[in-house]
Amino acid sequence: MTMTVTVTLESNGFFLGIEYVAVFCCGLLGGLAAVRKHYDLFAIVLTTWLTALGGGLVRDVVLGALPPVGISDKGMVLTTLAAGLIVAVIHPEVDRLKWPMLVLDALALGLFAVNGTQKALMYGTSGMTAVFLGMFTALAGGLIRDTLLNEVPMVVRDRHWYAFPSLVGCLLTVLSYRLEMHAIITYGGEIAFDVAIVVLVVLMRVLSVKFDIKLPGAVPREHP
Amino acid sequence: MTMTVTVTLESNGFFLGIEYVAVFCCGLLGGLAAVRKHYDLFAIVLTTWLTALGGGLVRDVVLGALPPVGISDKGMVLTTLAAGLIVAVIHPEVDRLKWPMLVLDALALGLFAVNGTQKALMYGTSGMTAVFLGMFTALAGGLIRDTLLNEVPMVVRDRHWYAFPSLVGCLLTVLSYRLEMHAIITYGGEIAFDVAIVVLVVLMRVLSVKFDIKLPGAVPREHP
Amino acid sequence: MTMTVTVTLESNGFFLGIEYVAVFCCGLLGGLAAVRKHYDLFAIVLTTWLTALGGGLVRDVVLGALPPVGISDKGMVLTTLAAGLIVAVIHPEVDRLKWPMLVLDALALGLFAVNGTQKALMYGTSGMTAVFLGMFTALAGGLIRDTLLNEVPMVVRDRHWYAFPSLVGCLLTVLSYRLEMHAIITYGGEIAFDVAIVVLVVLMRVLSVKFDIKLPGAVPREHP
Repeated sequence: MTMTVTVTLESNGFFLGIEYVAVFCCGLLGGLAAVRKHYDLFAIVLTTWLTALGGGLVRDVVLGALPPVGISDKGMVLTTLAAGLIVAVIHPEVDRLKWPMLVLDALALGLFAVNGTQKALMYGTSGMTAVFLGMFTALAGGLIRDTLLNEVPMVVRDRHWYAFPSLVGCLLTVLSYRLEMHAIITYGGEIAFDVAIVVLVVLMRVLSVKFDIKLPGAVPREHP
Repeated sequence: MTMTVTVTLESNGFFLGIEYVAVFCCGLLGGLAAVRKHYDLFAIVLTTWLTALGGGLVRDVVLGALPPVGISDKGMVLTTLAAGLIVAVIHPEVDRLKWPMLVLDALALGLFAVNGTQKALMYGTSGMTAVFLGMFTALAGGLIRDTLLNEVPMVVRDRHWYAFPSLVGCLLTVLSYRLEMHAIITYGGEIAFDVAIVVLVVLMRVLSVKFDIKLPGAVPREHP
Repeated sequence: MTMTVTVTLESNGFFLGIEYVAVFCCGLLGGLAAVRKHYDLFAIVLTTWLTALGGGLVRDVVLGALPPVGISDKGMVLTTLAAGLIVAVIHPEVDRLKWPMLVLDALALGLFAVNGTQKALMYGTSGMTAVFLGMFTALAGGLIRDTLLNEVPMVVRDRHWYAFPSLVGCLLTVLSYRLEMHAIITYGGEIAFDVAIVVLVVLMRVLSVKFDIKLPGAVPREHP
């Protein structure tokens, strides 16, 4: 069964290609945080790798899909290594590209959400478990990076929508998977649906930052 | 065998009921920490969930009991979701109930210690490994929460007895389990013993705070 | 197969003996950090244990070698317990021994790198995965300790070579393992090679601190 899973995932060249882009962008942003703190080259590459592949690492460990992609997929590891070395040189340019990088980071968020949820479903988990694992994939990398840099993680610090779009993306991915499973939509339809989900996550994230849309906090009441 | 284990655990309605209470209280306290930091609703629920179920998550991953209860048990997940939403509204009331919440937190500490140790023993681990896993269950949730909030974890920060009572609870749970296994006490006797352990953990924790009892630190000597 | 692995590892008394020394030294240093922060005895022992065995814990969880050595090997656990209790008494002496402790810490770094890489290879992972797991073993303990103490981890904070020598050690361990596997060197030759690797890691680390050798950071360029 694991065999079939692997084949299915690898034959899906479209998503695989985009995943490399997501890992690369995510890595650039992670590495940039390390450059800003004046870390050495090793720490830059480590931060790049953890940011880009740490989420999938947590997902695979919790799912029992060992060894995790983050330490066994040569293409992915080399991509993060390249991202780390490149950002060590072009960090001023990356720093300047605020909006493009925000979009690419949102793209990574959406892709990791869809991809993580799908992988969990293919391993036979329940929908709820798959949603959790999709969110781990999308959010844990940044969380580990911020823990490593000793900062309050962006997932709780950033008041704009960040975790929320990924939750929506994971929930819709379960829907898309089930619709295809029950032959309500075709395999092609599922792919189109998944692409739409990624676009939706990107839009939610970017529009939230652009128009300063925030989730409500606790009901404001006086503490005694 | 896993089947039997599940049945045994589920049939134990007494402990299951108390476990829901523990998860709920533990969640309230975790969510309160997020409310105090003015996080948004998503971050409040995330913190609630991690505090209440993060310890069991670590236990299950280390034990290889996948997928972990924290992302697969619908009742538990909904309980933490409810705790998060409720604390977002009644946070001033929860904040005011200092002593009741301390007792409930101590109750969760004791229940998680007994429950985690028992689960490990049922999976066939050695007594020492079970004690470790019981302590992970009792302490890891708060540890993850404090890491997420970028604070020194309460397990090392709080000078009153916190980890120590859970250690005592885990050790006694192994004893209780072995006594029943060797037919020295009955199954009913084991349950009574376990209840007594939880009460002992609560008493140790609460009395330590009440009368300011602390563990000694390192032997005080001059550094050169 | 796991059986054979265990036998092979246990029969290798030379490395086993050194590993106990490494765990003990690593624990002393971890416990010292907790003593400095005026933690209580329980927190000192916890920090000692996490520093010394946390790296192997992460390795075993990611490798699926459950239960992890750090919670199931009585000898190792008792060694960290002893280290924690001893450092609670002799902390001024340990604090004074700056260079000896630096050498012992470097020794632990090298031993954990070689040992972690070998264990992964024996479980049949690829060379790249084994290098990652070797580095987890060498670095994760200190990383968890620093997270627990709410500090920026030494692996990114210390500008002298720390992670870099462990990477070199892991890469050479894969080479050594493969040379023996392809009968290019004997089993005795592999052991001699491994000892040389540990010595190399220690030398790289100590000379880097002694002569203030650092890895380069990002290419210094103006941010806009």
